[in-house]
Amino acid sequence: MADTASPLNKISEFRLTRRVQFYETDAAGIVHFSNYLRYLEEAECALWRAAGLRLEPNAEHAWPRVAVSCEYRSPLTFEDEFEVRIQIAALTDKSIRYAGVMTRGDVLVATLTMTAVCVAKSTGRAVPLPAAVRERVEVSPDVAA
Amino acid sequence: MADTASPLNKISEFRLTRRVQFYETDAAGIVHFSNYLRYLEEAECALWRAAGLRLEPNAEHAWPRVAVSCEYRSPLTFEDEFEVRIQIAALTDKSIRYAGVMTRGDVLVATLTMTAVCVAKSTGRAVPLPAAVRERVEVSPDVAA
Amino acid sequence: MADTASPLNKISEFRLTRRVQFYETDAAGIVHFSNYLRYLEEAECALWRAAGLRLEPNAEHAWPRVAVSCEYRSPLTFEDEFEVRIQIAALTDKSIRYAGVMTRGDVLVATLTMTAVCVAKSTGRAVPLPAAVRERVEVSPDVAA
Amino acid sequence: MADTASPLNKISEFRLTRRVQFYETDAAGIVHFSNYLRYLEEAECALWRAAGLRLEPNAEHAWPRVAVSCEYRSPLTFEDEFEVRIQIAALTDKSIRYAGVMTRGDVLVATLTMTAVCVAKSTGRAVPLPAAVRERVEVSPDVAA
Repeated sequence: MADTASPLNKISEFRLTRRVQFYETDAAGIVHFSNYLRYLEEAECALWRAAGLRLEPNAEHAWPRVAVSCEYRSPLTFEDEFEVRIQIAALTDKSIRYAGVMTRGDVLVATLTMTAVCVAKSTGRAVPLPAAVRERVEVSPDVAA
Repeated sequence: MADTASPLNKISEFRLTRRVQFYETDAAGIVHFSNYLRYLEEAECALWRAAGLRLEPNAEHAWPRVAVSCEYRSPLTFEDEFEVRIQIAALTDKSIRYAGVMTRGDVLVATLTMTAVCVAKSTGRAVPLPAAVRERVEVSPDVAA
Repeated sequence: MADTASPLNKISEFRLTRRVQFYETDAAGIVHFSNYLRYLEEAECALWRAAGLRLEPNAEHAWPRVAVSCEYRSPLTFEDEFEVRIQIAALTDKSIRYAGVMTRGDVLVATLTMTAVCVAKSTGRAVPLPAAVRERVEVSPDVAA
Repeated sequence: MADTASPLNKISEFRLTRRVQFYETDAAGIVHFSNYLRYLEEAECALWRAAGLRLEPNAEHAWPRVAVSCEYRSPLTFEDEFEVRIQIAALTDKSIRYAGVMTRGDVLVATLTMTAVCVAKSTGRAVPLPAAVRERVEVSPDVAA
């Protein structure tokens, strides 16, 4: 992460460890299914921080999502510790596709996909990924999901 | 909806009208993408209320989701009024698949899918849909998404 | 709401009717306590819409909260229908204090207070309430909470 | 925290470090004010974990909140790192009052209070705090808020 001068020093994945908070559960006693997308976003932001970048909306660009999917395999309950592994699954000129795998110990919790596009704030139209972004990431050689 | 004696009186879709709340927006100035799943759940519950049923987890059954997907077409902002049209897209012995279309006036906002299974609380295993549920819904003849 | 020309036509309260959504519940089987603040905000925005205004952050002003409080009297569960009555409790040069009372039928659910200040976006400092705002509301003669 | 045999080894506060997630922001570009209550709950659960306990609702007890308050002093934005210091401010026979202070570096972000009561699930009525809970915590000698 330190040597940003190296052209090889690209990031293709990140593993986030996280505990279930009480406010994320629902009356079925498990994590509400909508929160899995928030967990994936949390891992996505951690990946970009690890790459030395911040992909928040700024004066120039925003990163709206165009598609997400999630397959739920095993529920999470209050205080469960789990891992979100996020990988760069594909890069196009104007978009990034992520793959996510959530696990609790050896148990598969969920698999996810998410695609974001880079949009110019001034026009609201998709534009090529900034060079600073493209330089820092690469497609994972071993996409899990 | 009133005459539950009629075998023809089944429900296959519901249209929910809803306004964007401020707490549903994010720092990009639009509705956070995770909330679209909550909107679809809101329409799902309204469909079941219209059918005279309540699909909440109870002593006997729970309805965990096994898969969701969403394609985002146009953003929503604070106070936008929008419609969520939910349809029964498929029924199997133990599961229900929904299709959702979100619109703001003539603008397509998103299309969604969601699959829930019926689980027995005592065993945690998928079981056939209760007769009371099966009797009240049918697959929409015209699934939009 | 129609005759904005009349100086007497000011709004001092609003009553919002709302149903508990499943995603608002937690693993205790009741609405998570943080959501009561969202319900109050929902009623606040409805009050301003009824007054013909939109108090969202815009290029000029934002309305950060400086204080909230809530006393919880009776829980809400999935699909409960409840009312949020919000009243203008006090107006100062630069702030608005609201009082809220939540009820489910005859049952008192919660009482709330919330204070917001008007801030100039350019300086980040509190400024006098815009005339358009001040002209449309007045302190309720009968503040409940 | 390790030596649970020692009667002196009681906990009276906990400091949680946390980063703002994107889904916690709103269209004003700051953390939505309702999320501060979630942050305090997060610190509360961490305090109880540090005390070797889990205060989630179980077959016997639940811990509904009876009152909360928050004074907001300085906003939080995306990716801000902040601390939530939670202290046991008071213990009665059947209730626990917490005081919270949120800071970002040297900046005071918010002060909070929250009171929870111990309720028997079988009757829905307040009951004395379980001995296992009482044995593990004490009022902080230096309540900050």
